[in-house]
Amino acid sequence: MSVADGARPGEVRLATDPASIHDATLAFVGRILSPWTDRGDCPRNMREARERGREAAVEIGEPYRPALSGLAPGGFAHLLSWLQGSRRDLALQMPRHADRPTGTFALRSPVRPNPIGLHLVRILAIDTASGVLRIDAIDALDGTPLLDIKPYLPSVDRPPET
Amino acid sequence: MSVADGARPGEVRLATDPASIHDATLAFVGRILSPWTDRGDCPRNMREARERGREAAVEIGEPYRPALSGLAPGGFAHLLSWLQGSRRDLALQMPRHADRPTGTFALRSPVRPNPIGLHLVRILAIDTASGVLRIDAIDALDGTPLLDIKPYLPSVDRPPET
Repeated sequence: MSVADGARPGEVRLATDPASIHDATLAFVGRILSPWTDRGDCPRNMREARERGREAAVEIGEPYRPALSGLAPGGFAHLLSWLQGSRRDLALQMPRHADRPTGTFALRSPVRPNPIGLHLVRILAIDTASGVLRIDAIDALDGTPLLDIKPYLPSVDRPPET
Repeated sequence: MSVADGARPGEVRLATDPASIHDATLAFVGRILSPWTDRGDCPRNMREARERGREAAVEIGEPYRPALSGLAPGGFAHLLSWLQGSRRDLALQMPRHADRPTGTFALRSPVRPNPIGLHLVRILAIDTASGVLRIDAIDALDGTPLLDIKPYLPSVDRPPET
């Protein structure tokens, strides 16, 4: 580890950039159609995204459209995205407005060894022919590749009573 | 698309196996240490896993251990895993006990174009030196590669009031 180049004071870099490691490969199954084309303007999280009051969409690639069968509008789903512009080599990061560096696994920053975004969205409408799903909001840039859609199930996605 | 080889009636296969597409690459950051070594014995989801009453663990690879800094025991986190034994080429699947084929994106089956597992777990203890996190339960086989840890945040991970 070393202090990260071009990073904020206190940030620490991994010795090997995970981008150079090829343990497994991904296939993009679609892309996010988002109102946000500028990184500085993109909401930081889904709460901020909903507060902006702008709908978004997801376009599924043609081969994968049959896999939408059974998905219902009105329900919630997790989208998994590939945050392709993000660096992957930081172990400790300095979040904006934070007073000390924090480990990547304690943050929801897009900067992580595998920059997979997890977005809980409401599905408003589904057009199976065009593969376009309208969603309530998104905290990702226009064109962000999509990896997966998983229906939200309270029985497994909500912390259990303790 | 065609009827899937070695699959159940009604299942439909993608023309191109996503395993042969290399749009992006992943780095394994650790592995799951699980009581389940046999696929037939592995819980089907996190609810079933908790009902079994068996704790599990996650071991983070040495380079990534500093990234645990700031993660607190007692809280919940999403684990993202790589379900490496799963086929990736089914668009429509026939779940057990189902009466009709359903699209992959409407199911939580491990069979999906990108077999990324999403597991909401409670972190019981963290040993930063060894990189071992004890967790309450897991619905994955022993040795399953780990891709990411994301802290659970109710503000973004819980469906909003409507």
